[in-house]
Amino acid sequence: MPTLVDRIAVGRYQDEVQHPSAIKAFVAEFISTLIFVFAGQGSGMAFTKLTDGAATTPAGLVAAALAHAFGLFVAVSVGANISGGHVNPAVTFGAFVGGNITLLRGIFYIIAQLLGSTVACLLLLFSTGGLTTAGFALGAEVSVWNGFVFEIVMTFGLVYTVYATAVDPKKGDIGTIAPIAIGFIVGANILAGGAFTGASMNPAVAFGPAVVSWDWTNHWVYWAGPIIGGGLAGLVYELIFIGRSHEPLAGSEF
Amino acid sequence: MPTLVDRIAVGRYQDEVQHPSAIKAFVAEFISTLIFVFAGQGSGMAFTKLTDGAATTPAGLVAAALAHAFGLFVAVSVGANISGGHVNPAVTFGAFVGGNITLLRGIFYIIAQLLGSTVACLLLLFSTGGLTTAGFALGAEVSVWNGFVFEIVMTFGLVYTVYATAVDPKKGDIGTIAPIAIGFIVGANILAGGAFTGASMNPAVAFGPAVVSWDWTNHWVYWAGPIIGGGLAGLVYELIFIGRSHEPLAGSEF
Amino acid sequence: MPTLVDRIAVGRYQDEVQHPSAIKAFVAEFISTLIFVFAGQGSGMAFTKLTDGAATTPAGLVAAALAHAFGLFVAVSVGANISGGHVNPAVTFGAFVGGNITLLRGIFYIIAQLLGSTVACLLLLFSTGGLTTAGFALGAEVSVWNGFVFEIVMTFGLVYTVYATAVDPKKGDIGTIAPIAIGFIVGANILAGGAFTGASMNPAVAFGPAVVSWDWTNHWVYWAGPIIGGGLAGLVYELIFIGRSHEPLAGSEF
Amino acid sequence: MPTLVDRIAVGRYQDEVQHPSAIKAFVAEFISTLIFVFAGQGSGMAFTKLTDGAATTPAGLVAAALAHAFGLFVAVSVGANISGGHVNPAVTFGAFVGGNITLLRGIFYIIAQLLGSTVACLLLLFSTGGLTTAGFALGAEVSVWNGFVFEIVMTFGLVYTVYATAVDPKKGDIGTIAPIAIGFIVGANILAGGAFTGASMNPAVAFGPAVVSWDWTNHWVYWAGPIIGGGLAGLVYELIFIGRSHEPLAGSEF
Repeated sequence: MPTLVDRIAVGRYQDEVQHPSAIKAFVAEFISTLIFVFAGQGSGMAFTKLTDGAATTPAGLVAAALAHAFGLFVAVSVGANISGGHVNPAVTFGAFVGGNITLLRGIFYIIAQLLGSTVACLLLLFSTGGLTTAGFALGAEVSVWNGFVFEIVMTFGLVYTVYATAVDPKKGDIGTIAPIAIGFIVGANILAGGAFTGASMNPAVAFGPAVVSWDWTNHWVYWAGPIIGGGLAGLVYELIFIGRSHEPLAGSEF
Repeated sequence: MPTLVDRIAVGRYQDEVQHPSAIKAFVAEFISTLIFVFAGQGSGMAFTKLTDGAATTPAGLVAAALAHAFGLFVAVSVGANISGGHVNPAVTFGAFVGGNITLLRGIFYIIAQLLGSTVACLLLLFSTGGLTTAGFALGAEVSVWNGFVFEIVMTFGLVYTVYATAVDPKKGDIGTIAPIAIGFIVGANILAGGAFTGASMNPAVAFGPAVVSWDWTNHWVYWAGPIIGGGLAGLVYELIFIGRSHEPLAGSEF
Repeated sequence: MPTLVDRIAVGRYQDEVQHPSAIKAFVAEFISTLIFVFAGQGSGMAFTKLTDGAATTPAGLVAAALAHAFGLFVAVSVGANISGGHVNPAVTFGAFVGGNITLLRGIFYIIAQLLGSTVACLLLLFSTGGLTTAGFALGAEVSVWNGFVFEIVMTFGLVYTVYATAVDPKKGDIGTIAPIAIGFIVGANILAGGAFTGASMNPAVAFGPAVVSWDWTNHWVYWAGPIIGGGLAGLVYELIFIGRSHEPLAGSEF
Repeated sequence: MPTLVDRIAVGRYQDEVQHPSAIKAFVAEFISTLIFVFAGQGSGMAFTKLTDGAATTPAGLVAAALAHAFGLFVAVSVGANISGGHVNPAVTFGAFVGGNITLLRGIFYIIAQLLGSTVACLLLLFSTGGLTTAGFALGAEVSVWNGFVFEIVMTFGLVYTVYATAVDPKKGDIGTIAPIAIGFIVGANILAGGAFTGASMNPAVAFGPAVVSWDWTNHWVYWAGPIIGGGLAGLVYELIFIGRSHEPLAGSEF
């Protein structure tokens, strides 16, 4: 039974990498990311509406954490058997670094994720009656380097979880609850990092709101942090715990 | 092991569609919806009681989200092996559009769901000592078209989740956690849409309170939105990801 | 693989009903109930401590719902393979009504549950530095008959869930997540009933605090409601959905 | 399929206890504890930041409970197949008492856990822009003996859960959801004990913040309580419910 990221490993076999399957994976990543960002970003807009734009409170952080934890769990579940349920450029990059997806296929995944996030934010813009979709921003007294490290550590935890529960061929029964674990580590990290960096751990999650609000302040932090943290997790897990040697993945295999 | 919506596919085989099984499915949908609406709608009445009718707060939204997420997860679980655990006319319609239930059987399901929701609201009316069961309403500055689109997008996510985790024959291990995913996407969406439309995603959930409070303002939004979103999800998933050709389902098969 | 209430069905076979197994089940019910009541009742005492005895708020209701949902899920999980993980006289009574446990064994279970709850409250009394363990009480403007019906409906949902996810021989994969469903329906119902009756659904949960605080006002509501609701669920599920005819269970089989 | 603590039982067989596997287990415990403490301790620091250092509220307790419940569930999941996912010296001690790990290997595990917690707190110190990592402390009017008993009872529940869901060879399907149960009993107990002792249940969780803030007031309570509660649970479960006789584990087997 192939679950989650396992599916993408089929990229290695020429005969499975035909157009229909690649298009299906593209659509699956697009819809999964749309569902996830709609609930997650929408929860922040609901907080703004209910409190007339007050500063985040602990109850608001709980709402954000649950919306993202539940939403990502579902987004990973519904995509798992089609695209692997990445829903996150940092996960796709971590899969690439560990040799589990080709470069070309990875780029297609990331485009689908960025599109899904942007469409989710446009739908929110209309259906909330024109509320601003606030972009991600660093908390007061949090420097870009503080936020950068925060995003690295949190995304390391997320992608390490993806590897341990979904990619690792020795995962066993843990694979059944992998999507819950992947969603909930994001929820846990938001309860910590939400007050400091917004706790994105996902460049696509930061990209959609940035497009719609056209606010790119410190946007690089939400790409560089997750990409480095995710790549590091992919490397560490593959080298230390899986330790398999991959055949090189040629671009033509996509 | 047949789970969730799989069971309803038996509608296709004449010999399994006997009276006892249809009646059991009717009772199961009735009880599941009653349990779900009792907890979900009751949580809103508890908020009203504890705050003397104050406007919703982020903590109130968290309470509503958890009550619906937990309640729907359970309602789907307990009905899964008998009726498929639809608990929602939009899910039944999405199953019909995808060719997974006959028209006649679908209508019976929806009647059971509407009855279950109404009885739950009547029981709440008595056991809370006569508190009003507030109907669903659009938030301030949310137009009917805003709310309409909001309900479409949220219900698309819900029924897409039902298809990907419970209907898809390639669902694999994901099927084990399907009821949790179905409950939790509703919880996630309430954290976003609860402040704008009440986040029904389910005509039965809106119907019971409307009957008991006899308030039908904008009620069509809570039917049209979910039906369109759910139907769209059924079409998209069947056509793109399952792609099977069904034998036409004759009404006589019910 | 025998899970949950299945185990207790072994009571039917003379040779399995030896002393060691009955004693193990007694200890398992005692410890499970102790763990559950310690967390659940303790969460109410924590609210009292943090707010200096203020009235319940929506955030307090969320805390109570999560403590009971998480605690009961765990209590059922850890007892499932030894005693069936009843942790509740209403569940034991529902199992008896459905013919799944003998009268004598059921009485032993209930004694263990009442003891576990009482010891949990005594431990809380000491370890909180002498805080009062508040007993269950009806909300303002909630009559005993309102509360009585509330407890009946909520416990019906709980024991129906136990039957559908753990007892039903056709439960299939749902059995894997049964303890989560059983815990979470209690969490969902607390978010509704917590503001009206305290949402006990469990005579043992109400008994321990009543002993320690020696307050028995309306205590019968917390026995009669759950017993009737639980018994009704056992009858309905057995007759309609399982429909098996049991051999009569003689007391000597215990 | 070996899950959780099962893996460590391999310590009994000389040929599996080679350097690479022991080092992998060390790294896995280090990373799991780091991920868990980063989210858990970080959630407390987020509360401090959002409220300018106000006293804990019920919403703050919910945030802490969810961060620890979700974080520990994930930490156990990702370590399960490599080190058994202890993430807690009390669990390691409970496993030692029950004869499931050798003394030498247990000490290595505990060193990894203490290191992981300390590194997590140092990373939090930097990435929050220098916020103080508050150590664990007893609530007002809570004596050391009150807190001591509180930690014993809570950790008993935690390690009993580890045994019943992960170590017990008769655990069956419950094993699939074991990491969720282990995480959620900690969440439930925090909702009770968080207001009285901070609800550590884990010497490593208390150690990291104590190092970084260099505050060792009553620190022994957070070692003695969990060690005694965890050891007691290991003894009780092994003797009463598993009842196997172990070959003595010689230190040379590590």
